Amino acid sequence: MDNEKTIFTRIIEGELPCYKLYEDEHVIAILDIQPLTRGHALLIPKEPAPSMDQLSEQSAAALGESLPKVCRAILKATGATAYNLIQNNGHEAGMSIAHVHIHIIPRYPESTHSFVWPYGEIDNTDAAKLAESISDEMD
Amino acid sequence: MDNEKTIFTRIIEGELPCYKLYEDEHVIAILDIQPLTRGHALLIPKEPAPSMDQLSEQSAAALGESLPKVCRAILKATGATAYNLIQNNGHEAGMSIAHVHIHIIPRYPESTHSFVWPYGEIDNTDAAKLAESISDEMD
Repeated sequence: MDNEKTIFTRIIEGELPCYKLYEDEHVIAILDIQPLTRGHALLIPKEPAPSMDQLSEQSAAALGESLPKVCRAILKATGATAYNLIQNNGHEAGMSIAHVHIHIIPRYPESTHSFVWPYGEIDNTDAAKLAESISDEMD
Repeated sequence: MDNEKTIFTRIIEGELPCYKLYEDEHVIAILDIQPLTRGHALLIPKEPAPSMDQLSEQSAAALGESLPKVCRAILKATGATAYNLIQNNGHEAGMSIAHVHIHIIPRYPESTHSFVWPYGEIDNTDAAKLAESISDEMD
């Protein structure tokens, strides 16, 4: 599987059609063909990394850099004022295609997408240790 | 309101405590104190933009660049293998604090956060026009 091209690589290479919104050396933005709302778009690095932790810093920087302008264009064209960005990594997290893609989902008064967000309170004893161990793991 | 410092600016400036995971010139990563799961973190640009569309390209690039390494460190320290990134813009989209922050949410077998994701099929006639108008709005 890992050697097969993802559907996004096939779109990037022009093998499959898409509704293209933007393209530069490092990224492409297209409409999602199974939209949650009108203007639901995907911002995709051309580098075929399966998850954010495996994306090169160069591609990740280019991905970040293009986000504000792609978001602005979607807001202007759709009239939406609020929107969610979602990016899923690993099948257990709802990832469907193993090639990094950021969902840009405009929100309208009639939008029905939402999050189940059962937050807890932090365990302060654990948190201090956990923060230290994450900090220690930073390359 | 716009002239008041957000809670994140107060954390960045050292006025409020946090569980810091990472910091550089442009970004800070901290533990969310109302975690959905263990290791739920926030990656925050120091620039106090209220939403992604208003963030400078320089800060957005730095934010993107730091994502892979922060994600890797969280995965290593927590043992999680899947995770969601969520970033909300505008109160209608679930934004609570008007200062860009990316939620990094590790997923475990016992995780209960989820998305309500009622996707539709694209309207091909509208999509072609919409893609063109978004593309036209790119600065």
